[in-house]
Amino acid sequence: MASGSTFGKLLTLTTWGESHGAGIGAVLDGFPAGMELSPPDIQKYLDRRKPGQSAAASPRKEDDQVEILSGVFKGKTTGTPISLLIRNTSQRSGDYGNLKDCFRPGHADYTYYAKYGFRDYRGGGRSSARETAARVAGGAVAAKFLKEMGIDVCAYTRSIGPVVIDEERFDRALITQTPTCMPDPEADRAAMEYIRQCREMKDSIGSSVECRITGVPAGIGDPVFDKLDARLAQAVMSLGAAKAVEIGDGTAVSEALGSQNNDPFYMEGGEVSKRSNHAGGILGGISDGSPIIVRVYFKPTPSIFREQETVDEAGNERNLTIAGRHDPVIAPRAGVVVECMCALTILDALLMNMTSRADDVRRFYEREQ
Amino acid sequence: MASGSTFGKLLTLTTWGESHGAGIGAVLDGFPAGMELSPPDIQKYLDRRKPGQSAAASPRKEDDQVEILSGVFKGKTTGTPISLLIRNTSQRSGDYGNLKDCFRPGHADYTYYAKYGFRDYRGGGRSSARETAARVAGGAVAAKFLKEMGIDVCAYTRSIGPVVIDEERFDRALITQTPTCMPDPEADRAAMEYIRQCREMKDSIGSSVECRITGVPAGIGDPVFDKLDARLAQAVMSLGAAKAVEIGDGTAVSEALGSQNNDPFYMEGGEVSKRSNHAGGILGGISDGSPIIVRVYFKPTPSIFREQETVDEAGNERNLTIAGRHDPVIAPRAGVVVECMCALTILDALLMNMTSRADDVRRFYEREQ
Amino acid sequence: MASGSTFGKLLTLTTWGESHGAGIGAVLDGFPAGMELSPPDIQKYLDRRKPGQSAAASPRKEDDQVEILSGVFKGKTTGTPISLLIRNTSQRSGDYGNLKDCFRPGHADYTYYAKYGFRDYRGGGRSSARETAARVAGGAVAAKFLKEMGIDVCAYTRSIGPVVIDEERFDRALITQTPTCMPDPEADRAAMEYIRQCREMKDSIGSSVECRITGVPAGIGDPVFDKLDARLAQAVMSLGAAKAVEIGDGTAVSEALGSQNNDPFYMEGGEVSKRSNHAGGILGGISDGSPIIVRVYFKPTPSIFREQETVDEAGNERNLTIAGRHDPVIAPRAGVVVECMCALTILDALLMNMTSRADDVRRFYEREQ
Amino acid sequence: MASGSTFGKLLTLTTWGESHGAGIGAVLDGFPAGMELSPPDIQKYLDRRKPGQSAAASPRKEDDQVEILSGVFKGKTTGTPISLLIRNTSQRSGDYGNLKDCFRPGHADYTYYAKYGFRDYRGGGRSSARETAARVAGGAVAAKFLKEMGIDVCAYTRSIGPVVIDEERFDRALITQTPTCMPDPEADRAAMEYIRQCREMKDSIGSSVECRITGVPAGIGDPVFDKLDARLAQAVMSLGAAKAVEIGDGTAVSEALGSQNNDPFYMEGGEVSKRSNHAGGILGGISDGSPIIVRVYFKPTPSIFREQETVDEAGNERNLTIAGRHDPVIAPRAGVVVECMCALTILDALLMNMTSRADDVRRFYEREQ
Repeated sequence: MASGSTFGKLLTLTTWGESHGAGIGAVLDGFPAGMELSPPDIQKYLDRRKPGQSAAASPRKEDDQVEILSGVFKGKTTGTPISLLIRNTSQRSGDYGNLKDCFRPGHADYTYYAKYGFRDYRGGGRSSARETAARVAGGAVAAKFLKEMGIDVCAYTRSIGPVVIDEERFDRALITQTPTCMPDPEADRAAMEYIRQCREMKDSIGSSVECRITGVPAGIGDPVFDKLDARLAQAVMSLGAAKAVEIGDGTAVSEALGSQNNDPFYMEGGEVSKRSNHAGGILGGISDGSPIIVRVYFKPTPSIFREQETVDEAGNERNLTIAGRHDPVIAPRAGVVVECMCALTILDALLMNMTSRADDVRRFYEREQ
Repeated sequence: MASGSTFGKLLTLTTWGESHGAGIGAVLDGFPAGMELSPPDIQKYLDRRKPGQSAAASPRKEDDQVEILSGVFKGKTTGTPISLLIRNTSQRSGDYGNLKDCFRPGHADYTYYAKYGFRDYRGGGRSSARETAARVAGGAVAAKFLKEMGIDVCAYTRSIGPVVIDEERFDRALITQTPTCMPDPEADRAAMEYIRQCREMKDSIGSSVECRITGVPAGIGDPVFDKLDARLAQAVMSLGAAKAVEIGDGTAVSEALGSQNNDPFYMEGGEVSKRSNHAGGILGGISDGSPIIVRVYFKPTPSIFREQETVDEAGNERNLTIAGRHDPVIAPRAGVVVECMCALTILDALLMNMTSRADDVRRFYEREQ
Repeated sequence: MASGSTFGKLLTLTTWGESHGAGIGAVLDGFPAGMELSPPDIQKYLDRRKPGQSAAASPRKEDDQVEILSGVFKGKTTGTPISLLIRNTSQRSGDYGNLKDCFRPGHADYTYYAKYGFRDYRGGGRSSARETAARVAGGAVAAKFLKEMGIDVCAYTRSIGPVVIDEERFDRALITQTPTCMPDPEADRAAMEYIRQCREMKDSIGSSVECRITGVPAGIGDPVFDKLDARLAQAVMSLGAAKAVEIGDGTAVSEALGSQNNDPFYMEGGEVSKRSNHAGGILGGISDGSPIIVRVYFKPTPSIFREQETVDEAGNERNLTIAGRHDPVIAPRAGVVVECMCALTILDALLMNMTSRADDVRRFYEREQ
Repeated sequence: MASGSTFGKLLTLTTWGESHGAGIGAVLDGFPAGMELSPPDIQKYLDRRKPGQSAAASPRKEDDQVEILSGVFKGKTTGTPISLLIRNTSQRSGDYGNLKDCFRPGHADYTYYAKYGFRDYRGGGRSSARETAARVAGGAVAAKFLKEMGIDVCAYTRSIGPVVIDEERFDRALITQTPTCMPDPEADRAAMEYIRQCREMKDSIGSSVECRITGVPAGIGDPVFDKLDARLAQAVMSLGAAKAVEIGDGTAVSEALGSQNNDPFYMEGGEVSKRSNHAGGILGGISDGSPIIVRVYFKPTPSIFREQETVDEAGNERNLTIAGRHDPVIAPRAGVVVECMCALTILDALLMNMTSRADDVRRFYEREQ
């Protein structure tokens, strides 16, 4: 699947759709048959991504009602492609009319134009963050199955500008309750105040999301190019505003010593365990049974309301002021997208792993017969 | 190519081989016909990766002579798979004998065992960094073609422990001359002193590599999941010791404001240009014509000479002391690997791009006929 | 794309949907930007596949109106995924109610059940020939582009039971006019009479389709496993009722001598030409410039109205009589599907070929800059 | 893996190498860990393909000794890529010297030249049937594992020119004993006499191979584009001289009636069985538990010793007489290649199938923990 709209190996998600077209959607193929699935299972993930919910997000209303078009029969997955459709309903085309021949700084307008010689200028077209709703729709299906297998994928806002959550105050319930999706009430308040100040200055703010994945058994992931961390890195760096990804201690490892960074093994309850988790749950690209820790860093929303210097398609320099409804910061709505991308990656790796050992293959087919 | 030993879409590199087996190798498929290629083109890249060259690297001798087994005829590539073979010659099996049932902390011994139920314990087997020599062999071919097209891929050691290069002193010629592969003579000296101290304490050191790619035209990369930065992230995070990757300003974007982070467009010499390059040359996953900046952070070499706590395959807790010849720090030998992985990623994206526009396809076949 | 619902390498078609679900659809990714496309371009292909048009087809009415959900802006393709939706409108669920726990002979009921342990029994679910409407929708887009490049893909009914067309009477205009889609008026009449007789006996009839592809330049296709004929074979054998495929002289080559079968080369108008075309336009898996000839053989429609012996999910032997609306013979409606699958295969190979030569790559990027 | 030298989805075989280069080889990735494997397991398959064994084959001597370079440790597969090398030893370059600028009729000389603008003219280079030795090396590994699981893949010469085997006289032991690899002693004798006559006339002969695969459980294969028969068709049509493929009754279905062609189901020993096997073991692209029957039709060897009309690279018409050592008929040496391609296809489908059901996935990971 060369053209970039498909993710995954055994479990593949293909997304399609533009910000201001008829709708967006996803086709999830390779999902095992027999799991119970109904629209509310997906809708609750989409609702977490919806704008218009707080001062930390755009006042835009997007209904984002998902329709399951195929792959489910009598409330269960059939093993065939699950097609998911979200009609676009809330586009105000007028908002974007004045941008149609200008390249917005920080956006993909210029690069799409350079690649295709032609672009859908309405709301960024295919490069709009709206595309991630389709990822959430597909990822929700994977997340449901992981949950049934005791694997928890949990993402939350880790920082907004200079405000970083404090692990000591971590309260998971807050993730879906605070406007910032931070699991720390004090950081949430401080971040909301910071957002208020920046909005006053017509500016936007950088942020980061952390994702913790627990319950993944040791041994998951593929060697060499498809290491589990390499796949997770691709998964989250494929979000338009992501500029960095860390696994475990991340960039800090570059200043550590080996005696600090190595996680000693010991036995606990008959299981191989680690005394620390600097590795973030992955060694040599394969899970080690500890929580998998992924952090993603997002640039400030490129749509700001200050006047900006830019050029247009005809090569004229122009001053541009963007109007419309835009999130001031990306993390609050991106957390659930990160969660869904990680869920897809982990489930794909779990499926791959079932064929790693000749004994497992033999045992599977002996049972079959 | 599900099992992880293949990278790329149109241009694919498959590597094979273990640290202490008969050899390692690579098959590069999809490389265009008609480029001049001979073993020295590849050997000079492999020589940059060789150990035993300085106090910043293992005293191990690996000859790493490459043999081109196919895909080249009369000194030119034929368009068919280029098979590259590097025989293993310098393995001292005795060095690893005492490790055969112990899981070395920080290594993939335990995770490979958990995945496959069985492992080649000699020098880490397939998970050994020796596998990256095969990537260098294949990547050198891509780098040569990029160079012919005016695209420069240049990686170097950016930091070793707390010692970071100073951009003001950047001297490219030093990359292949300093023992650290740092382009800054003062940082090189300070880093060598730091390495000396750590080795005395039987410890190893974290590090980072930076790669600058210049000459890539705007418009290269694929949307959504195969964004150019997402592919670069997978490419470099697939190196065993990598724990973080940054594009452009990287993690720092999370504390920036939109008005700081957006790169204004202007016209220069009839070309769309940017006043700054916080984006690191990529917008919405597609190149914008500015230099592409990638940074990779490596953990300290997990093989340290201090006694470490661990467990063995039978589930016994053990104290382990590793002997042998190991690099104290990863960046100096990893720079050329990062360069080669980036070269493969960029060339693949360039090839993909030739089919992006209907007009180009029509023009190509009109010319043909 | 492991799970089977995606076809192609650079140009990929993913289909989804079941016979009696909400609808069926296709996502075509990798299609070049800038080609004019509107629903009628696709609808005219779908209309050729529609049932209810003659005594050679089911009296079922399927409206099969296509909606383009994405990938087209201002009447042109944008280079991003083209999502195509066909709502199901004409399903009479009652028709299939009595089949819900029986395995129809010749159908995929039993094999889907064996694979997934669970199946959508309504009209065959995913295994229904209705899925091919999604292929036609996607293939029509490829066919339009090929036509613009002077490549003609033309499929027609070659035989129905014992009635085979006579090349001497070949009249292309008849393909879309005769009820059998045969290009020979006499064969059409004879075949219609044969169909009438078989229907009286509550039986169905085998058939074959031939596809001629002209205008493909020499040099198209990939070596070894992705030979153009191997890809065409997969493309057409992936139709549910196909049981054989031939290229050029097909099975007859097994009784030929080399001196008969080799096509001598000669020069004509400065071009390399062949005195005959036993090879069917492909040598060593790569096009030779002659017409590409593909033949597909279809089994009789497995839904027959006679009582048949079978078993049910509980393992009871049962006598089954199928009611409903079924085509008596497959070729008349399958021709356009074969045409579309061939168009997708050829366009994909044409795109792949643009990167085969280093000189072409260099020239492309010199022009770019 | 776009460029055509890789086959398979979970289990992938990549081949490389030219007829007269340093050697040929294969990389088999995705093979499960823990199966016993040593060079003789592979060598015995390669020996079946060797030329120089009878009057039905070329008198050329190719030693074809395989070396396992990776992926096996202590006599067992490790789950990592199995790299297989066969050095070329017997090439007489002189034999081909006079062909270096001529396009041999029936060969890929012209089409490779048209594609790449440059070709390795020595013995056909990459398009040589010698490439299939690498397929046999990789396929032998798959075949061994299938055999351990009770799945038998058995291919043999079905016809040579007009001489077809008689099922009544089928004697499996003869496949590896007769010079024609026919399982019927009378057909073998008649075919050898026919070969003798044709060789006298400096001509070559068409032929066909049949492959029977028994022991495959029902439910194997993927829907839609990756139907098991579609994959088998690609697998065998990717052999250079193959011009047709049939599954089950093959082309004959086009003249059958539905009441003849449908295989009635019944129960036997508590298992779903079929009263006949017109379907050749595959319904709707998925195995039904009956023997899978594949037939491949090969054109006469294009290298004949009569003078032929052709053209050269400069566009001159030329008369060409081919010397050298060439098989008069393809089937005898191709049978083992067909067997190996089918083994790879079936094992890949078996691995894919392990993830088809949610219950199986859950059960696998419950057992793991």
